[in-house]
Amino acid sequence: MHYTYLEFCLSAAGLDLFEGDIKIEKNTRNAIIGDNYRWPQTIPYYLEDNLEINAKGIILQAFERYRLKTCIDFKPWAGEKNYISVFKDSGCYSYIGNQHWGKQPLSIGSGCDTIEVVQHEFLHALGFYHEQSRSDRNDYVTIVWKNIQPGKGHNFEAYDDKTLSFLNVPYDYTSLMHYSKTSFQISNESTVIPKNPDYINIIGNQMDFGESDVLKLNKLYNCSSSLTFLDSCSFERDVICGMLQSTSDSSDWERISNISNGPNSDHTFLGKLSDTGYFMHFSTSTGNTGSNAILESRLFYPKRAYQCLEFFYYHSGSESDQLQIWIKEYTTGKPNGVLKLVDSVSGKPADYWKVHFSSLNTTKKFRFVFQGVKGSGNSTGGISIDDINLSETQCVQNVWHIRNFSLDFTKEIALSPPYYSNDGYAYQIALWSYATLSSPYNLAAYLYLITGENDRTLQWPCPWRQATVEFMDQNPTIQQRTSNMKSITTDPKQFSPGSNTLLWNNPAVVGSFSLFPNGTTYRKTGGYGQFLFKAEEWLYRRDFLKGGDAFILISMEGMPQIITFYLQWL
Amino acid sequence: MHYTYLEFCLSAAGLDLFEGDIKIEKNTRNAIIGDNYRWPQTIPYYLEDNLEINAKGIILQAFERYRLKTCIDFKPWAGEKNYISVFKDSGCYSYIGNQHWGKQPLSIGSGCDTIEVVQHEFLHALGFYHEQSRSDRNDYVTIVWKNIQPGKGHNFEAYDDKTLSFLNVPYDYTSLMHYSKTSFQISNESTVIPKNPDYINIIGNQMDFGESDVLKLNKLYNCSSSLTFLDSCSFERDVICGMLQSTSDSSDWERISNISNGPNSDHTFLGKLSDTGYFMHFSTSTGNTGSNAILESRLFYPKRAYQCLEFFYYHSGSESDQLQIWIKEYTTGKPNGVLKLVDSVSGKPADYWKVHFSSLNTTKKFRFVFQGVKGSGNSTGGISIDDINLSETQCVQNVWHIRNFSLDFTKEIALSPPYYSNDGYAYQIALWSYATLSSPYNLAAYLYLITGENDRTLQWPCPWRQATVEFMDQNPTIQQRTSNMKSITTDPKQFSPGSNTLLWNNPAVVGSFSLFPNGTTYRKTGGYGQFLFKAEEWLYRRDFLKGGDAFILISMEGMPQIITFYLQWL
Repeated sequence: MHYTYLEFCLSAAGLDLFEGDIKIEKNTRNAIIGDNYRWPQTIPYYLEDNLEINAKGIILQAFERYRLKTCIDFKPWAGEKNYISVFKDSGCYSYIGNQHWGKQPLSIGSGCDTIEVVQHEFLHALGFYHEQSRSDRNDYVTIVWKNIQPGKGHNFEAYDDKTLSFLNVPYDYTSLMHYSKTSFQISNESTVIPKNPDYINIIGNQMDFGESDVLKLNKLYNCSSSLTFLDSCSFERDVICGMLQSTSDSSDWERISNISNGPNSDHTFLGKLSDTGYFMHFSTSTGNTGSNAILESRLFYPKRAYQCLEFFYYHSGSESDQLQIWIKEYTTGKPNGVLKLVDSVSGKPADYWKVHFSSLNTTKKFRFVFQGVKGSGNSTGGISIDDINLSETQCVQNVWHIRNFSLDFTKEIALSPPYYSNDGYAYQIALWSYATLSSPYNLAAYLYLITGENDRTLQWPCPWRQATVEFMDQNPTIQQRTSNMKSITTDPKQFSPGSNTLLWNNPAVVGSFSLFPNGTTYRKTGGYGQFLFKAEEWLYRRDFLKGGDAFILISMEGMPQIITFYLQWL
Repeated sequence: MHYTYLEFCLSAAGLDLFEGDIKIEKNTRNAIIGDNYRWPQTIPYYLEDNLEINAKGIILQAFERYRLKTCIDFKPWAGEKNYISVFKDSGCYSYIGNQHWGKQPLSIGSGCDTIEVVQHEFLHALGFYHEQSRSDRNDYVTIVWKNIQPGKGHNFEAYDDKTLSFLNVPYDYTSLMHYSKTSFQISNESTVIPKNPDYINIIGNQMDFGESDVLKLNKLYNCSSSLTFLDSCSFERDVICGMLQSTSDSSDWERISNISNGPNSDHTFLGKLSDTGYFMHFSTSTGNTGSNAILESRLFYPKRAYQCLEFFYYHSGSESDQLQIWIKEYTTGKPNGVLKLVDSVSGKPADYWKVHFSSLNTTKKFRFVFQGVKGSGNSTGGISIDDINLSETQCVQNVWHIRNFSLDFTKEIALSPPYYSNDGYAYQIALWSYATLSSPYNLAAYLYLITGENDRTLQWPCPWRQATVEFMDQNPTIQQRTSNMKSITTDPKQFSPGSNTLLWNNPAVVGSFSLFPNGTTYRKTGGYGQFLFKAEEWLYRRDFLKGGDAFILISMEGMPQIITFYLQWL
């Protein structure tokens, strides 16, 4: 059966790895109290050759998460006295804080190559213990000593407040540093039980920094801003984040809470509170063809050479209406700025919010500009925008918008549309939700290579392309998101389980036949996957679903490109 | 007429002073760009002898506002190379940033002794220009050059972004550094006009740091936390800020959104959104006399020897029910903590939220504890709490709760209940809203001394007692408030205007006769006041009124005590 096959692949990339990383800590008496254990704000690292290729890409992505939410940066080691040597040992582990050893090891072993595990290990390296090691942990969790594996009790020690400081941040069940209920268990009995029963499945299953992790990082490293974040605007205040209505246009953007032909709610509070939030609306129901409205952002000063402008939009106008995205760049020679078109959004009207990503790629002082343009068709609505985020990060390549996301995929696998990697490999992503005895809830993401138009000119088996699948947290502020990202990399020597077929070989040769919804035949390889969610509670805690919809952000790139790309800007 | 008299007194303490402080800046080419202009995070200062006594008290209070919202501290000069010498010159002014002159002057001249003017001048000293000096100010305001006094145009210069950095914070009409529409005007014509017309009366009338001022301060001085803030809790999340339900009590606090016998809304969203927010409720409608519920906070580590616990409560139970506030202090000898009763709230039930302040005064690791106790009377409700703030600040002495605050005091003056200063002087505060030709809206606060039980043993005329009147911003988070505070100090040599009567002499001798609402006769001196609000728009922008109610926080202390008190902990 196909399903069994998928599950087997998944088990091979099992995820219960956080518990492994305490092995070393038992030998350390160090702690976050003491300036000596802190690293400089920019930490030198070295990726050792024995790391898995997938791990290398993920480590660089994990650094990007630090840069988005903190002032902590990472740079390739260039002879500094102390640095972190990331290598592949048995399991995932790190020492706590800067040990001043020169080369300080941090292991991303087999199965440790998920972004949250890498973030977790670096939190150790930066000076953090596990959350349940706090001196006040007995107020919040019960440690069930009889269920702990013999000889592993030391992993559940608490440290007193002379060793470990809370930094005046409350205990957090959603910390990336918290153990799960199954950590070091003997059989199926829990070893850590939250006193608040709502958190039993939440603990230990975090996907990104918890709010408290970010607070503590920024307090310990004296961060007063973060490195790659530029702006966030949900239009809730009348000053609209310093954005400007142009006077050189023929119409205006209006700040409203709802409009008769849609949307009837902003995106910020969608499905939560009605008539509370605001969005910006350009009406195309009146005016002549070509009439337009311009909304300019305040000024920004980029530090990198690439920026991603992300926004939600609702198109209730005519198919001929357009939303154009420009940047206005300022230089000494052009003090009034030069406009450059970067992107354009059009298409069929729809009665729901969508998300869009525009790459800006500027090194100059700039504004971003939204221009709504009325087309020739009849319209009873217009174009609305909300929940803008601007950061110096790379935009995702594809958005898989799943309307009215339902969890019951037990009878079928949800398959994405076909996509191409940046160098031409065709692929698909699948989601599958199912239960096993040990994990009553699992939502996993799979990669398949499929037949595409470049197959004859591509290298086979497909070598080291990394697919990244992110179940988007739709929190209006990018810095408050805990997004859920997994990566799957094509190893050209990997065999399909239990066979001698190379898994990532040309799907035109090794693939099984499938049908697109339009009836076209194609072929696809076996799938290989990673768990996205292991606790259903997480799906509803955050804004993974908003108005019932999910957005799955999907990219696929060659690993050398990813690594070169990041290194270039470090 | 009495009213005319009051207005005369008020004019003597006129407030349009921000415009004076640019005089010196025209001679400086310095700016916030450049680390050299920054002070250390703790800034040495010296209060010169020629400062007005009221100014000295206000300067120390202004420092407290910095400590609540930033990591910037101030310490009396003790021989450091560079320090700020605060003295009384003509007007209020400061140089921009640290000039490395050794003794750097900052003038708090006559009429400059309000807390927001002191904060404003110190923002200059810390490195900030006026908001309308930003290079992007033409996007947000229009400078009307023809309305500016001849020879004063230099005050309206913008500085380019090589001189002045935005620190990636948007332009802010509500900045404490923004000019008002009347700054340096020739006649009644505006000199600065916001492009957003909603802000015409808002600019230049700020009462505390704007949100952007705090952001910029914290970015420029690398603050990752503030000095005196400890915690804020509005119970919006199920983890209730790490607070704990005790197991040694007979009942429980419940987290709910409304309850039939009140409250039907939490305090956080009162009058804004219904069924959205949460509060904690102890029901006394069931259970036996003496049954009780305990809610303990997480652990705190104080840095000072005094803390203020502030909270809103709603009492819908029986008059015999009680809310007791304890602290649990931990020491090496008492690792399980020792409980100490610090305060108790009881009284007649009421169908509205009230605010309460409890002084904790501990130097040990501690928790605060709310204990609800059911009394012997019949109850159909209980006790609710919401919007808790804990900070290492002094609690206010008195709360004047004005239900259904109405602005039309033109026909009568709103008089507070009688209060006693901490050393026995009886006094009253009045509020009066009125219009003049130049100021169509004014809300002012007045101090009167009144006859009291200690009058025969007190010193007359009353020497140097400072009354502080704060129109409370009820934002649930203390760090996000822009509270409106004014101080009036009794100068024993001050005459009643146009007379040879000493204003602050014994009211039993110089006071006019008045009646309390209960018919008791008393005597009161003439009033002396300060403007609270000069723009009605401010009252509705913030949470000064919530559910229609206003809270006026009132204290009166001897100036030496105030100064000694603060110096002791600097």
